[in-house]
Amino acid sequence: MAIFGNSIPKVMDFVEGIGYLAAIITTAGFVPQTVKAIKTRQTKDISLWMYIILLVGIILWLLYGIFTDSWPIILANGVTILLVIPVLVLKIKC
Amino acid sequence: MAIFGNSIPKVMDFVEGIGYLAAIITTAGFVPQTVKAIKTRQTKDISLWMYIILLVGIILWLLYGIFTDSWPIILANGVTILLVIPVLVLKIKC
Repeated sequence: MAIFGNSIPKVMDFVEGIGYLAAIITTAGFVPQTVKAIKTRQTKDISLWMYIILLVGIILWLLYGIFTDSWPIILANGVTILLVIPVLVLKIKC
Repeated sequence: MAIFGNSIPKVMDFVEGIGYLAAIITTAGFVPQTVKAIKTRQTKDISLWMYIILLVGIILWLLYGIFTDSWPIILANGVTILLVIPVLVLKIKC
């Protein structure tokens, strides 16, 4: 360990940072579509199946986060569920 | 460990299974939108920013997978990039 000093923890911090950033950005990615759908009430070109399948997958990610006690996964997917549901409701209603 | 027998590995297998399933389903979720956009060439209601931000986030997930040597993350996000790009191209062109 003396050879590496504290460089391994630093590398892991960097990699973990990329993971957190990836989680934040992919979650944020759903915001513009939700805002656009609520504003325009137009969802014709959006795939219903995309949002149904994504919702199922994201609920599974949430369960995975709960089982592994991973707060970043719980938060990212909890927020994404809240962003996906309005689009799904608008898609079904409009 | 004798108390738990081999129940802990079994629980971890179950939880890992949920993670893999979640990765497969969220990746699969992008397929219907890509197919719909290619078929109809209609992307008016799709948010350009959603796809730009998601692409950046997914590239970061891919890097995270490469750094952590996680093949499920590499594969899931590699495939998702291939599904996101055509929608982005159609959105910009149409």
